[in-house]
Amino acid sequence: MRLLPASRPATAIPAPFDYESHFRSAIEALHAEKRYRVFADLERIAGRFPHAIWRHEGKAREIIVWCSNDYLGMGQHESVVSAMRNTVSAMGSGAGGTRNISGTNHPLVELERELADLHGKEAALVFTSGFVSNEASISTIAKLLPGCLILSDELNHASMIEGVRKSGAKKQIFRHNDLAHLEELLKAAPEGQPKLVVFESVYSMDGDIAPIEAICDLAERYGAMTYIDEVHAVGMYGPRGGGISEREGVAHRIDVIEGTLAKAFGTLGGYITGSKMLIDAVRSYAPGFIFTTALPPAIAAAATASIRHLKASQAERDAQQRQAATAKAVFSAADLPVMPSDTHIVPVLVGDPDLCKRASDHLLEKHGIYIQPINYPTVPRGTERLRITPTPLHDDALIASLADALTETWKAIGIPFASKMKATA
Amino acid sequence: MRLLPASRPATAIPAPFDYESHFRSAIEALHAEKRYRVFADLERIAGRFPHAIWRHEGKAREIIVWCSNDYLGMGQHESVVSAMRNTVSAMGSGAGGTRNISGTNHPLVELERELADLHGKEAALVFTSGFVSNEASISTIAKLLPGCLILSDELNHASMIEGVRKSGAKKQIFRHNDLAHLEELLKAAPEGQPKLVVFESVYSMDGDIAPIEAICDLAERYGAMTYIDEVHAVGMYGPRGGGISEREGVAHRIDVIEGTLAKAFGTLGGYITGSKMLIDAVRSYAPGFIFTTALPPAIAAAATASIRHLKASQAERDAQQRQAATAKAVFSAADLPVMPSDTHIVPVLVGDPDLCKRASDHLLEKHGIYIQPINYPTVPRGTERLRITPTPLHDDALIASLADALTETWKAIGIPFASKMKATA
Repeated sequence: MRLLPASRPATAIPAPFDYESHFRSAIEALHAEKRYRVFADLERIAGRFPHAIWRHEGKAREIIVWCSNDYLGMGQHESVVSAMRNTVSAMGSGAGGTRNISGTNHPLVELERELADLHGKEAALVFTSGFVSNEASISTIAKLLPGCLILSDELNHASMIEGVRKSGAKKQIFRHNDLAHLEELLKAAPEGQPKLVVFESVYSMDGDIAPIEAICDLAERYGAMTYIDEVHAVGMYGPRGGGISEREGVAHRIDVIEGTLAKAFGTLGGYITGSKMLIDAVRSYAPGFIFTTALPPAIAAAATASIRHLKASQAERDAQQRQAATAKAVFSAADLPVMPSDTHIVPVLVGDPDLCKRASDHLLEKHGIYIQPINYPTVPRGTERLRITPTPLHDDALIASLADALTETWKAIGIPFASKMKATA
Repeated sequence: MRLLPASRPATAIPAPFDYESHFRSAIEALHAEKRYRVFADLERIAGRFPHAIWRHEGKAREIIVWCSNDYLGMGQHESVVSAMRNTVSAMGSGAGGTRNISGTNHPLVELERELADLHGKEAALVFTSGFVSNEASISTIAKLLPGCLILSDELNHASMIEGVRKSGAKKQIFRHNDLAHLEELLKAAPEGQPKLVVFESVYSMDGDIAPIEAICDLAERYGAMTYIDEVHAVGMYGPRGGGISEREGVAHRIDVIEGTLAKAFGTLGGYITGSKMLIDAVRSYAPGFIFTTALPPAIAAAATASIRHLKASQAERDAQQRQAATAKAVFSAADLPVMPSDTHIVPVLVGDPDLCKRASDHLLEKHGIYIQPINYPTVPRGTERLRITPTPLHDDALIASLADALTETWKAIGIPFASKMKATA
């Protein structure tokens, strides 16, 4: 990619490929489509969430974060923070190796026990992220099953799609939460063929919920394994925070429950839970698990503290549901186009990538409110939105001022209000 | 995968695939090949590395770790530990979101600046692990270059192989560190075709070093991009810890320098550095970067503290080289089969997977010395070994007692000594 030295004979000079201009074109394409991402440089303030410092053009300003996936504020909970701090002091900053080569630290062993218990499974396996847990587990499970057919919900997360691709297995996509379509595909496959149904409990962009029990019924009828992603539900649903599958009493009917430690549990990492044999197989065969440094003991200890707290305490879950319901009601009353959602996620429709970006910028600059625009490919074109996630720490006063700021922004930018959308629909 | 309910009519019952027995067979195959992995449950003790607690069969015992990738002991360095502890107290345990959705924390922005400076590049991008950084970056770069040909060293790490596979690009494997073979492949490819040469600086199982400058010469001659993995070198080589490419003054000739924060820097995460445009392209297009929670601010701050310390301090690098050289000399004098190595890595040949595992178990149980067996597929069959990594904190007395323990183990298990190997060779 360098220039050729002047001393090289002219005949030896090839026509070099222009790498830099190709990367530039790739970036320009994103600008043209209004989906080039700019990251906000934030500094969280322990104990003051959702307040944070935003650094921009040399200035630091206090703002309110309204789009965090630290859904319950556990990333700043005293029990979690002190577990992490104490473990850093006792054991240092890193794990020092892969799980197999000196990196299996005792807090990680304890965390895996805690997670198996959370979901009522025999065993658990922790990965460095939820993304890696899906990619590595789905691909490894499918590879181990000869001729496996994967049936995958069309709205599954990017990490699950990567896992399906990486497996090299045959896949069929079923329409989102469409049981009839799933059954049609299951029925069409040979009886003895191994099948893996891959889906989420809470779909995070719309906030809707899968018909888990009915999917289990179909899986049992057609001899399929089930793999559920509960990353937007663990900690937040079920009497102990075991997710939607716990709330609906169907966890025992699901073969693999995958979750994250980086959202409601407020730390970092992902995991799967399942039978001892399945977990041992993934542990033994997944390159994305084997050849990577283990999570630091301090992160593992913080995650365990968070899970234990949320197993015993219902207060955070109740407060989150209450504040999400309040936000939906207040926004609807203000004629803002709140999209239907069965969960704590409150999407507000903009419907255009440019307006969406401008609304987000306006909210931040004028109101000190940070809500990232959600554009294609994260959501389908035409459904661009602001995705708001009220936590127990977003109180009624904050909700009221957000409603005012949104209303002002909708007017200033020229985004249609709900009544206008219905009128033109 | 569940049993069918008794109430279902017999005619509807398919012959279900037996998932559990397939997972069991996969595990049994590993046992049969003597490469089933058992993780040692370790508890590091801050300030007392390489001492640690080993938990086994209900007992806790103090042991010496001799196979850590915390190569310089920075995972317990006071500046690193206190940076992590203070940042946890100030900012909490987690990042709270993806980089794009509220997760870009200020310590991470600072860390990326520090890394760009370390390698003399315009920009840097941090990932949740070194594995992810290789997999996501190699696949994304190759995908962005139409018709890209990847030229990959045959001993590249699993994470690089996954990146090459995932790219879907055409690939050619060149024999390990074989410049003639690399040139042959480069020459055979059309001049205007984009080409990416992917290799490591230090190969971690043998401890040998790539001919970086000569590879750069070839890449320039044939218009190829260069991507180097310096995970086993950053922090440890070069006057500021910029790796072998810094030591040899060729960093500016390499397009992408990849490294890890989880080995010599003692924390967690991986990164790439390169031109602004290239980094922006990977940042904008890599699913494994986009759709995953950012590293916690405390981890980022700890990594920055570690990098800054090692930029200024040569003492750790000197001590590591000295102790590695001492270990090699002492083991060789004891007739132990030390494999040739140009680096801090000290491999001792066993040559059989069963003996290797037994030697490792014996060392741990009898001598309280922990060195993980390295078997196929991590190394070729017949070259099974103990891979020893002396750090500045493994003093001469520890080296002497390790030599004694190895000698006793070699005799007890019946592993050939060096003179015996030469005699029969």
